[in-house]
Amino acid sequence: MSKNVLVPVADGTEEIEAVSTIDVLRRAGAGVTVASVNALQIKASRGVNLVADCLIGDCVDKSYDLIALPGGIPGAEHLRDSKDLLGILKNQKQAGRYIAAICAAPAVILAHHGLIESEKVTCHPFFFHRLDPHDRVELPVVADGACITSRGAGTAVQFALKLVEILYGREKANEIAGAMVTTLDKDRSALLS
Amino acid sequence: MSKNVLVPVADGTEEIEAVSTIDVLRRAGAGVTVASVNALQIKASRGVNLVADCLIGDCVDKSYDLIALPGGIPGAEHLRDSKDLLGILKNQKQAGRYIAAICAAPAVILAHHGLIESEKVTCHPFFFHRLDPHDRVELPVVADGACITSRGAGTAVQFALKLVEILYGREKANEIAGAMVTTLDKDRSALLS
Repeated sequence: MSKNVLVPVADGTEEIEAVSTIDVLRRAGAGVTVASVNALQIKASRGVNLVADCLIGDCVDKSYDLIALPGGIPGAEHLRDSKDLLGILKNQKQAGRYIAAICAAPAVILAHHGLIESEKVTCHPFFFHRLDPHDRVELPVVADGACITSRGAGTAVQFALKLVEILYGREKANEIAGAMVTTLDKDRSALLS
Repeated sequence: MSKNVLVPVADGTEEIEAVSTIDVLRRAGAGVTVASVNALQIKASRGVNLVADCLIGDCVDKSYDLIALPGGIPGAEHLRDSKDLLGILKNQKQAGRYIAAICAAPAVILAHHGLIESEKVTCHPFFFHRLDPHDRVELPVVADGACITSRGAGTAVQFALKLVEILYGREKANEIAGAMVTTLDKDRSALLS
């Protein structure tokens, strides 16, 4: 069963976080659209040049099972400042569909725009103070309701595997982890399940 | 102290492996050149579009402290078939400088071209039978002399951190791991050190 996933990117997006999410979800069979809020070709945070599938303006009338926001600075700030993306995120939140964010993105995008209600969330230690003390949790991956968050480039594969688990089940996540020669971390949060 | 690193890429290169290596080594301060053996823009194994810094032909007369080969099929086969890259790798081997490879690359490129002498090596389980039984080791990351190998997309960050440790020392590798919200794995091989 194919799921539609949107991964917005920008100049300064953290490339391990973006690429791990795209790659692992496509391994699961998801239809992943990589949409830029800047030009079609972006320069990621460590200089990797990525060409998106489309611009974010092409996505405003579409529906996604999951929107996954990579971090990186200034990438997350560019995502935060995109009016098109904000509209898409507000619709997604209102519909109760999945929103995921990693590294700077939970604080810089979700918290900034009031897209966290009472869900437990995490983010990169550098931005952790920006999260509401009642909501924040120091775990590599946190899934609570329709909100999935994670901490940084070093947790990106586990974040992506959690998204696969949520969309396709634990068996599929285990299968993909094995093919990537890793395992599902024992210390990943499973607040959702 | 800046080190020069070459990361060759091709259509079908595993994008997590390529991008993790580039990103983590640049975090350490390395000058990383991403060189395509196909066109400048390549489509990686899960459809991520990457634009290389140059073509492999631009690299034949240069000297690198480290050449790191990502896996992915058919990416590793395209790298194997590049005469320019083979010349660069043979020079690198002869000079005793570092060659690293992950996933399919140790078997499909290094073993195929006789670039493994008696070093201990690992690779993706799917290609493990192609490695000489006297050389092969089932560990996430194996560093032996000037040869560093690893197993798959799920071990790519640890592979890249090991390359940082070798070029810049353990303190720098630990610092970068922390900023990425991960740690140096306890089960990484340290045959070199």
